[in-house]
Amino acid sequence: MLDHVRIGMDKEEIDTPALLIDLDALEKNIKTMADYYRSKKGAALLPHQKGHRLPIIARKQLASGAVGVSMTSLGLAEYYVNCGITDILITSEVAGVNKIKRLVSLSKHANITVGVDNLENAKQISEIAIANHTKVNVAVELYMGRVSCGVEIEEAKRFVKDLVKFRGINFKGFWWHQGTLSAIKSWEERKRRHFETLDRVAALKDEVEDAGINVEMLSGGYTCTWNITPEYPHLKNIGVQAGSYVFNDWCSREIEGLEVFECALTVLTRCISRPKRDKAIFDFGMNSCSDEHTHNYHNVVGPKFKDLEGVKSIYQREELAAVTLENPDREVRVGDVFEVIPPHADTTAKLHDKYYCIRKGKVEAIWPNYGRGLL
Amino acid sequence: MLDHVRIGMDKEEIDTPALLIDLDALEKNIKTMADYYRSKKGAALLPHQKGHRLPIIARKQLASGAVGVSMTSLGLAEYYVNCGITDILITSEVAGVNKIKRLVSLSKHANITVGVDNLENAKQISEIAIANHTKVNVAVELYMGRVSCGVEIEEAKRFVKDLVKFRGINFKGFWWHQGTLSAIKSWEERKRRHFETLDRVAALKDEVEDAGINVEMLSGGYTCTWNITPEYPHLKNIGVQAGSYVFNDWCSREIEGLEVFECALTVLTRCISRPKRDKAIFDFGMNSCSDEHTHNYHNVVGPKFKDLEGVKSIYQREELAAVTLENPDREVRVGDVFEVIPPHADTTAKLHDKYYCIRKGKVEAIWPNYGRGLL
Repeated sequence: MLDHVRIGMDKEEIDTPALLIDLDALEKNIKTMADYYRSKKGAALLPHQKGHRLPIIARKQLASGAVGVSMTSLGLAEYYVNCGITDILITSEVAGVNKIKRLVSLSKHANITVGVDNLENAKQISEIAIANHTKVNVAVELYMGRVSCGVEIEEAKRFVKDLVKFRGINFKGFWWHQGTLSAIKSWEERKRRHFETLDRVAALKDEVEDAGINVEMLSGGYTCTWNITPEYPHLKNIGVQAGSYVFNDWCSREIEGLEVFECALTVLTRCISRPKRDKAIFDFGMNSCSDEHTHNYHNVVGPKFKDLEGVKSIYQREELAAVTLENPDREVRVGDVFEVIPPHADTTAKLHDKYYCIRKGKVEAIWPNYGRGLL
Repeated sequence: MLDHVRIGMDKEEIDTPALLIDLDALEKNIKTMADYYRSKKGAALLPHQKGHRLPIIARKQLASGAVGVSMTSLGLAEYYVNCGITDILITSEVAGVNKIKRLVSLSKHANITVGVDNLENAKQISEIAIANHTKVNVAVELYMGRVSCGVEIEEAKRFVKDLVKFRGINFKGFWWHQGTLSAIKSWEERKRRHFETLDRVAALKDEVEDAGINVEMLSGGYTCTWNITPEYPHLKNIGVQAGSYVFNDWCSREIEGLEVFECALTVLTRCISRPKRDKAIFDFGMNSCSDEHTHNYHNVVGPKFKDLEGVKSIYQREELAAVTLENPDREVRVGDVFEVIPPHADTTAKLHDKYYCIRKGKVEAIWPNYGRGLL
């Protein structure tokens, strides 16, 4: 069946497994974030695109007040620029001669800022930019521990003083990702720890500006600090690279305390077998709904059923899931469809060719997932 | 850079992260399997396609003696039939009216056999087949515990007797997947357990044939029993749905005891940051190299570096990996490329738009991964 004839059809008729967006939930999430930022003069939203990779969602975010977008992947940035989205922070370093050439080329067509944390890499970017008669905007990444690139805050001033000597680059400021904050459940404690970092960044900014170098840009908030970063009293205009609020998987919602955002992304699945009274086999698996490990990297968590109580356990193989039922609140028959909420929306979205957008149970739109393989 | 200009270039020049196939290793794996089966008159290889999803590999397998192929996904079967591969066992049940219509339609164009384990489902397939003036071949799936669909062996004869009453289906025989065998390290013990199952299947076959119903097809071996199934003395022509031997990830090789097959699939990655003396950040992550849990579902295992000793730990985020180094055997600088071997080839291959095929360090071919999102 061709996609265009699916518009208007009932959700239950979509061939499974399929990736669904609940449009009401998506729009509510975007509005909740935008409303908050509208009231916070000076805080800047740079929504991260790594989860959905959809320019159509980026446009909704920009239309509701975001000042630009952020993304990890140069390939995705190339796609976005082609789609007319031109203010992009690449929250990663770009290394390797060919990839740097692509970056330099892209910088001629859009307002791209890329992370740097290494002088050899910065020198190479500068030389290729000069050879191509352009300059590349860079933001120095600050090191935030364990799973982060970046320059230590204590060493950042010296690093910047060396960096600004390269003629092919424009130093814009600093960015960072303090991912460890999401493991802190208490909002107050998370705020305390985030503000500690912001104090150090504020001091760094003063030091660098005292040395005569302008720090135009600071960007270091994310979904987990969406309503904390703008409250910091000593800095204005800190970029918030919030991304996962758009789809908000169940791990973000429950473990990271983001209850205010809805789970807008689900995988539609069908029961294909009932080999035992307490066992149902569904047609989703690791190839359509990623598992996720928790922060300590030793436990695996799977998806959750959206409207089915009585699921005791889920074991995923590549293309099926064995579900153990304990007094389920409804009958589960072969052919019945259900929705599961992934533990991690980002890695699940990458598995599908397209998104089916649902409103009140009907297919309202189909969005091809062109961005999914762009690394 | 367009793909066609990459042919012949050095592996190290490919933009990272990228999915590589070592063609020598791939061809050796296919040959090892084929040579073994050539000497085993009567054993039938039905190589499973769920890992690579590449018709070009299926053709190499068929050319070297496979009698057909197997796959889990109807969408992939549609693609393969379009590519001219027409002997397919679908190792899954197909449920839902629209998907059954697709199955019935496909059955008019190819020799498709699909799994069934539910009479309502079989009835629906039969009715839609009759309405479309065709018949669908079915193989009854046998239940193999915990994460399997299927009918209990004890109930299978009665099931088949009901099944053959449906005029829109052809009963072909039985298939099963005893995935739990891969957790048994000892070849002798694995053989003992596999033969126990085969004894029960042989008895079932006799019973069903005694009832006047021909059992043409039995298929229940896989990579893990590739050199066990054909040794079973009491049955001939058992289909072996071996799949993962083609790429053989490190978990299959080390944990499942498949050392005879090479690890042919790797992810090419680049060091993008050296924030600490013992810390290197690479540009692969969960979006280009899947993590995998082990059989008990409580431990996460990640990729392994191919030619780098001294890696203490790897922690993957979506699009980067933080690698802790302990006296590495070579210097690791920003911009350097390495290969990592995924723990699970199937779920990793699905993440990439294309495969780069390497021979002696050069790009020999680029294979688009058209099959990856076909569910």
